[in-house]
Amino acid sequence: MQYATIIRILGILLMIFSITMLPPAIVSAIYEDGGGSAFISTFLLSLITGLVLFWPKRKAKAELKIRDGFLIVVLFWTVLSTFGAVPFILAQSLPVSLADAVFESFSGLTTTGATVISGLDDLPHSILFYRQQLQWLGGMGIIVLAVAILPLLGIGGMQLYRAEMPGPMKDNKLTPRIAGTAKALWYIYLGMTIACALAYWIAGMTTFDAIAHSFSTVAIGGFSTHDASIGYFDSNAIELICAFFMFIAGINFALHFISVRTLTIRPYLKDPEFKGYFAILCIVILCCTSVLLYYQEYPFTDALVKSIFHSVSIATTAGFASADFATWPTLLPVLLIFASFIGASAGSTGGGMKVIRVLLLFKQGMREIKRLIHPNGIFLIKLGKASVNDRVVQAVWGFFATYVVLFVLLMLILLADGLDQITAFSAVAACMNNLGPGLGDVAVNYSGLSDLAKYVLSFAMLLGRLEIFTLLVLFTPYFWRR
Amino acid sequence: MQYATIIRILGILLMIFSITMLPPAIVSAIYEDGGGSAFISTFLLSLITGLVLFWPKRKAKAELKIRDGFLIVVLFWTVLSTFGAVPFILAQSLPVSLADAVFESFSGLTTTGATVISGLDDLPHSILFYRQQLQWLGGMGIIVLAVAILPLLGIGGMQLYRAEMPGPMKDNKLTPRIAGTAKALWYIYLGMTIACALAYWIAGMTTFDAIAHSFSTVAIGGFSTHDASIGYFDSNAIELICAFFMFIAGINFALHFISVRTLTIRPYLKDPEFKGYFAILCIVILCCTSVLLYYQEYPFTDALVKSIFHSVSIATTAGFASADFATWPTLLPVLLIFASFIGASAGSTGGGMKVIRVLLLFKQGMREIKRLIHPNGIFLIKLGKASVNDRVVQAVWGFFATYVVLFVLLMLILLADGLDQITAFSAVAACMNNLGPGLGDVAVNYSGLSDLAKYVLSFAMLLGRLEIFTLLVLFTPYFWRR
Ligand SMILES: [K+]
Ligand SMILES: [K+]
Repeated sequence: MQYATIIRILGILLMIFSITMLPPAIVSAIYEDGGGSAFISTFLLSLITGLVLFWPKRKAKAELKIRDGFLIVVLFWTVLSTFGAVPFILAQSLPVSLADAVFESFSGLTTTGATVISGLDDLPHSILFYRQQLQWLGGMGIIVLAVAILPLLGIGGMQLYRAEMPGPMKDNKLTPRIAGTAKALWYIYLGMTIACALAYWIAGMTTFDAIAHSFSTVAIGGFSTHDASIGYFDSNAIELICAFFMFIAGINFALHFISVRTLTIRPYLKDPEFKGYFAILCIVILCCTSVLLYYQEYPFTDALVKSIFHSVSIATTAGFASADFATWPTLLPVLLIFASFIGASAGSTGGGMKVIRVLLLFKQGMREIKRLIHPNGIFLIKLGKASVNDRVVQAVWGFFATYVVLFVLLMLILLADGLDQITAFSAVAACMNNLGPGLGDVAVNYSGLSDLAKYVLSFAMLLGRLEIFTLLVLFTPYFWRR
Repeated sequence: MQYATIIRILGILLMIFSITMLPPAIVSAIYEDGGGSAFISTFLLSLITGLVLFWPKRKAKAELKIRDGFLIVVLFWTVLSTFGAVPFILAQSLPVSLADAVFESFSGLTTTGATVISGLDDLPHSILFYRQQLQWLGGMGIIVLAVAILPLLGIGGMQLYRAEMPGPMKDNKLTPRIAGTAKALWYIYLGMTIACALAYWIAGMTTFDAIAHSFSTVAIGGFSTHDASIGYFDSNAIELICAFFMFIAGINFALHFISVRTLTIRPYLKDPEFKGYFAILCIVILCCTSVLLYYQEYPFTDALVKSIFHSVSIATTAGFASADFATWPTLLPVLLIFASFIGASAGSTGGGMKVIRVLLLFKQGMREIKRLIHPNGIFLIKLGKASVNDRVVQAVWGFFATYVVLFVLLMLILLADGLDQITAFSAVAACMNNLGPGLGDVAVNYSGLSDLAKYVLSFAMLLGRLEIFTLLVLFTPYFWRR
């Protein structure tokens, strides 16, 4: 393990992260909300810690291997989330515990959007801005992780995308090309954010709310500046704008990249995952609308808009709400929570297991049936025109099974902690899928849980965000051997 | 498809099945309970139907292929379960609906043990005996299915056992050797039943109860002649005897076969699945005892006995109860229900996904982690000393994913039917894992559900019993093509 180089990189990341404390400080100055000092303190703390880590190792530039990659990715998220918790602890307007601060910060950076804070409408603008910005930064990190790094690490079948990545990539090494790819992706992400903020503003949000919600929308994060979430605005136009941008942000950013470069929409239309993603959303919206109309919960237009909004919001794992969907007919909340297990596309800011994996599982399931009937037949699994390597399929199976097993284990821990079944089930689902709101006691807010539960759920968020295996390998003796 | 031969076989099976209506008729005569005519009528109905099917095709003896095998297995269970429902409809002491009768019969023959009948203690002996006998016959069928037929069909990785089966087997053909294997297995099963009945009788059960419960114990069925199940006897000795025989019946019968033949216990000790099975039971018992002691639900001896009894009963998917375990601290019922997903060993009378598959999933999960760290390494999956074919591992993944997906779909149907989450979850789990009792509204009895729910759950029982794929292939156009 190249510890010196890893520490050097971590130092750099922390110094860069420290700069992100300045915008909330500026917001505090603009609104004169008196919350600026928490951010200035955290800025200094992160900068100095980063410098202390960086300086002694500034000449360490060893070539990084796969193993180092795992460690860097995990440290990136855990260290930044930990420092990200500091403003919540320092802010005088927030009487939160350490567990609360850690939970909120992890929830922000992993774009989960579960919150332990209530009374959002009365909080200083700087704190609100900071929470939204955490999600936006998290979203950026995820895109780079998912498009450029996970394929290299080969997590859960994502080596599938190795060939498709923009720019040449050498196997087994984390090359500097990542920087180039990352830059292009960030421009797309930034453009999307600006478009989203403008649309919100035109639809009637204040400038602050428009920017704040654009951050958490393109990040598929789900944090809001109001306790009532998007429901606060009580506007079908805003709900449809939100749904549109969540939908766009739930597409593989590599597709956006190619589309922008070639100025056509063909890359989407011929992508099997995009087709699957679109189909799944349509099915969920159809089910949702039918059930709402059958139970006569809303008039037709409202039922349709609420269905589109909530289906996209939960299925892409954004987790925004405009109505108390947890109290809809029992089928719907459970259906939507299950849809969040599928989640958005790989290489997007969304969570869940990802559409591409579900697609591969389905195709492999069909192959197994064909094999039962013709045991000596040879059947290839195809994605579009390309046939998929068996190794990729195996990795996807492994991902699915591990996901389910870890889900069950975490749920049992929460049950042992005294939660009821529905709360435990939905809390783990909402955190592991980086969704946010659950059902039962965590339908709106996670503040009522014990500290243990908050730490377990923070871990679940990270587990989901890092596609399980990136984090899991670090818990095996095999990883640390030699 | 060799339809003529399939119909001939079905006719024979039905004629054999008709004979099983005579013992309950004899029981009725002995106890003079007035219930005999239902069984005599069903006997005649089955015999004549069987004859009508058999006679025109009596000369059809075409060689059967894999495809025919699937159809025969599914028809075997559905047709016999349907005819098995007739006595419940005809019995005057049981005012049950058609859905109830079908549910009870499927539950019996699949050894699920979920019941829609209450007031068992007041029913005629003949009906009680008939229910127990259904489970015992179902258990017989399962052992032959699991040890001799599924490995040939290659369901969910069970081709793993093809080489280990007693006697030479030709690939791709259902050879007459099945008959020989079946006979040997049945002797073991019969011996086990007699030993179990004797033990129960010595421990204080009446002769009738001892025989009746021995039937449902070795079948891992869970039907009882009392509403209070094993709890009726209020005896630690009986609970331990029951646990012991459930444990034995949850072992692969191929191991019993080899052990009896060689008169040593070595086959068990060197079998990886047996070790896994034993280890899982120990872990569950340990968790269960600790939680019961922590919450001070019982004094030490009772806590230990209740833990052993319930852990073995639920984890092997027998589903007997001696206490109202659904009201224990929330963690335990959920933990036990999850344990029933693992279930007993392949080739036993137990349900669930089977220990061998969970073992293979775990090993493959570990391999995926090793592959992440060393992408170019070659890692074999070993069971004992033999390495496992990748094809088998893929089939096991397919089995697991399909199991989970079908579970979710069936649960959504029950939610749409208006059940609450816990009832829907546990009812599908209890039926698909062939466990029996659930939680919530189905903790004791399924009679309160709608007819739709009863049919869906009957389907779930069959799905679980036929290891998903045997039934699922019949729903693909691919199976019926050409
Ligand atoms: K989210
Ligand atoms: K059972």
